[in-house]
Amino acid sequence: MVRLRRARCVRGAEALVGSLVGAGVDVCFMNPGTSEMHFVQALDSVPEMRGVLTLFEGVATGAADAHARITGRPAAVLLHLGPGLGNGIANLHNARRAGTPLLCVVGAHATDHVHHDAPLQSDITALAGAVSGWVHTCGHTRDVADDAVRAVAATTEHGGQVATLVLPADVSWSEGGALAPALPAALPVPPASSRVAAAAKAVREPGAVILLGGPALTAAAMDAAGRIAAATGARLIVETFPRLWDTGAGRPRADKLAYFAEEALAQLEGASSLVLAGARAPVSFFGYPGVPGDLVPDGTAVVGLADAASDAAAALEALAAEVAPDAVAEPAPHDAPEPAPGPLDVASLCAAVAATLPEGAIVIDEALTAGALLAPALQTAAPHAQLALTGGAIGQGPPAALGAAIAAPDRPVVAVQADGSALYTLQALWTQAREQLDVTTVLINNSAYAILRVELARTGAGEAAHSGRAGRMLTLADPTPDFVALATGYGVPARRVETTEELLDALRWAQAEPGPHLVEAIVPALG
Amino acid sequence: MVRLRRARCVRGAEALVGSLVGAGVDVCFMNPGTSEMHFVQALDSVPEMRGVLTLFEGVATGAADAHARITGRPAAVLLHLGPGLGNGIANLHNARRAGTPLLCVVGAHATDHVHHDAPLQSDITALAGAVSGWVHTCGHTRDVADDAVRAVAATTEHGGQVATLVLPADVSWSEGGALAPALPAALPVPPASSRVAAAAKAVREPGAVILLGGPALTAAAMDAAGRIAAATGARLIVETFPRLWDTGAGRPRADKLAYFAEEALAQLEGASSLVLAGARAPVSFFGYPGVPGDLVPDGTAVVGLADAASDAAAALEALAAEVAPDAVAEPAPHDAPEPAPGPLDVASLCAAVAATLPEGAIVIDEALTAGALLAPALQTAAPHAQLALTGGAIGQGPPAALGAAIAAPDRPVVAVQADGSALYTLQALWTQAREQLDVTTVLINNSAYAILRVELARTGAGEAAHSGRAGRMLTLADPTPDFVALATGYGVPARRVETTEELLDALRWAQAEPGPHLVEAIVPALG
Repeated sequence: MVRLRRARCVRGAEALVGSLVGAGVDVCFMNPGTSEMHFVQALDSVPEMRGVLTLFEGVATGAADAHARITGRPAAVLLHLGPGLGNGIANLHNARRAGTPLLCVVGAHATDHVHHDAPLQSDITALAGAVSGWVHTCGHTRDVADDAVRAVAATTEHGGQVATLVLPADVSWSEGGALAPALPAALPVPPASSRVAAAAKAVREPGAVILLGGPALTAAAMDAAGRIAAATGARLIVETFPRLWDTGAGRPRADKLAYFAEEALAQLEGASSLVLAGARAPVSFFGYPGVPGDLVPDGTAVVGLADAASDAAAALEALAAEVAPDAVAEPAPHDAPEPAPGPLDVASLCAAVAATLPEGAIVIDEALTAGALLAPALQTAAPHAQLALTGGAIGQGPPAALGAAIAAPDRPVVAVQADGSALYTLQALWTQAREQLDVTTVLINNSAYAILRVELARTGAGEAAHSGRAGRMLTLADPTPDFVALATGYGVPARRVETTEELLDALRWAQAEPGPHLVEAIVPALG
Repeated sequence: MVRLRRARCVRGAEALVGSLVGAGVDVCFMNPGTSEMHFVQALDSVPEMRGVLTLFEGVATGAADAHARITGRPAAVLLHLGPGLGNGIANLHNARRAGTPLLCVVGAHATDHVHHDAPLQSDITALAGAVSGWVHTCGHTRDVADDAVRAVAATTEHGGQVATLVLPADVSWSEGGALAPALPAALPVPPASSRVAAAAKAVREPGAVILLGGPALTAAAMDAAGRIAAATGARLIVETFPRLWDTGAGRPRADKLAYFAEEALAQLEGASSLVLAGARAPVSFFGYPGVPGDLVPDGTAVVGLADAASDAAAALEALAAEVAPDAVAEPAPHDAPEPAPGPLDVASLCAAVAATLPEGAIVIDEALTAGALLAPALQTAAPHAQLALTGGAIGQGPPAALGAAIAAPDRPVVAVQADGSALYTLQALWTQAREQLDVTTVLINNSAYAILRVELARTGAGEAAHSGRAGRMLTLADPTPDFVALATGYGVPARRVETTEELLDALRWAQAEPGPHLVEAIVPALG
């Protein structure tokens, strides 16, 4: 456990930070303000805690989400009152949907300052409740460390959740804090034999589909799923936005469930059953007139093997032991084809990323319209992990790349990033530069909110999606953001490329040099 | 009223947009997503509504806040579900504290899609409630226009507030909408003779202070206050963060209340009474150990003349008629001294802004540590209006400059902007470029969260505020953001300056050319 000055005279902030370190939380992504100054000060007395400064709270929360996904341990952020929490909410929403264990410490006014309704006073717990499974306001310095270890334990419940601890400034600055020992993490629910038996029956029928998600996407879980598929002929499909998926060469092939409802329905059509392993029954991302929201085809049985709070790998192992005791998963080959030369398009961009992907890389996928081509291209790339936009709140990619790189300093991070989304949280590049992280961002500049053009066209607007007053709300031209200039402004070396050859050169340059890089790839918009 | 296709067959979105225009809301700052596509589509059928695209929701909400402050009419934003609202919350918080009439339309999943708990589903009303005085979810297409005009009227209640209308996608896309006529705006509360009499008694005593804020900072209200001061000797003090203050040469002098509690207490010490005109009784921005949160000195009587929901100008006129029937306000001279030449510091920067300020300019003050020198320097600059960070949620400046420039295309906007705050919402520069707005941003680059260094030093951290692990959380160096590159990336011409002479040159360049400009001024940090 962390050594501190005599327990009697430590400040609340020191007891909190020290106890977090004791509970295994030793990185905190932060954007502090006045009410958090004693927490910041405690970084000097508790050197085991690493503070990582971000320029915007949404960067901190997105980084913490990715950090926890990669390490498998709770991550932490420090935010400044209600507005700071508000700025972090979009990526906390993504963390909530990912089932990420994330501790959110929100500084607040001193207890006896609240009644003054000072300018920054707001309803922090109302905001926190919208994204957190657990919310508590510290009431006294002597309890702050206990509150902290309870909060860390709470992040591991229900398969992983956001726990928010509101920390009044006086609780933080007063003396009388003491360290608290870590509490045990909640354990995933072990496999139930009845569920395994039902799944076994389902996958032995022709036409079964196993939908993998959440905790069922680790290398071990995927290997078990691959053995089941090899033995039974069941198809493997991975949820559209995986929290962390070990994939690539040497691992079993699996398609991703398509984003658009019509395509997902077509993928699942004719399935005899849908066995859910760590995934929920699929629903459409948005509702559309005349399109069903429930994507389970009529006549397809839904069989729940393991939910997101379960030990999905153990459940898949148990299922494999039952239906595929001697089977071997058929691994995807390492066979990333050479990308087509010449002017870049989305297909050649994805192929170039696949062809150059380093082994063990972490791929941050906020490619949006380009994502449909990225996953198939990566299927036969070097083995790697993919991390996606679980909650649909865009602006996750640049922060997630930062958090993943902090979590795994020995693994290269490749972020395949749409332009419109990047512009939500591009400040993350600055922290990538400050921490000298091995992140290569491939920025797909198509000068549009391309996915919204598709959506506007689906409303019946047709050509107006590309012109007129409505279409102008979906274009990123006039002026087109210059991502080389923006990256340079944040201290990240950058290049612009327009051909496959230039992209390949730039990727080699980025991977050869230490530190972060950005490659702005000019491509025509799909749709 | 707006002409639409036969009322029977218009979509909900068209009825909504058309009715907003009828109610005087004809600009909408937006960052739409799939659930808002029919609202976007309606921009083509209701050309009276101007859509202004922003790259981030916090830009939209900050711009709308400033737009309403300048026009005096309700402004509108369009946001995308809970995460989009989350991104906009910080500047909605500022709008709430400013008493800004602001309509917040938040798109939501189609009514029958909610039960699927799709990835973007979240508790929108909980988030909205934290910043809104009025929240309603549209239930049916036939009612959407009525809901909209009620929402617009609600924004004018209680002296101005945020009203949030949650718009499910099916309500928006279905036909059966009809236009609704505008409802009357709530009127400010007229002056009460008993309050005027009490205030008259107070200001006739020596040592009275009139604290002006909110609606009491218009030219008319300030002139009345100036006459009262001239006749009675009462001191005029303006609240620390005014929502919109008509000031400069020709208007009565008034000091701003200091930001730090100790300084504000010193300013008010010995006041016989504090007459509140549109302002609340002053409280410390933050609580500190051993420092009172209530800034009214012992023995000072507090006299409420007019609150933020009152017709403060009429109340001050009534008071002036009582105590200063023949008085003339003593106007500040137009006498902005030449700034000292040589390497820039905060004093010469503020003097240069004052010396070059165009008449009628709107000054956006998010200067933070530099703000203490800015207001005195501007006191004798050309007559202008100042707009400040009412709620303390930083990242308001660049969006506010955008919104003010859209509201008043014939008035130059000068934004005096701290670096750390700018980096929250710098995307606003892109919309400034797209709309070719007359905004000059003077970016004060001191490579630090300078105000937090002051705060950290106040915790007793001392030298650690500038070094060590804690100090590193407050510095913007390593790398220092390059604001010229960042502005260029967003399409805004920019220059870096290090001397007074260069700054004056750059300000003349920015004011001579149309469109937005950014001047990055390198200055040493205070504190």
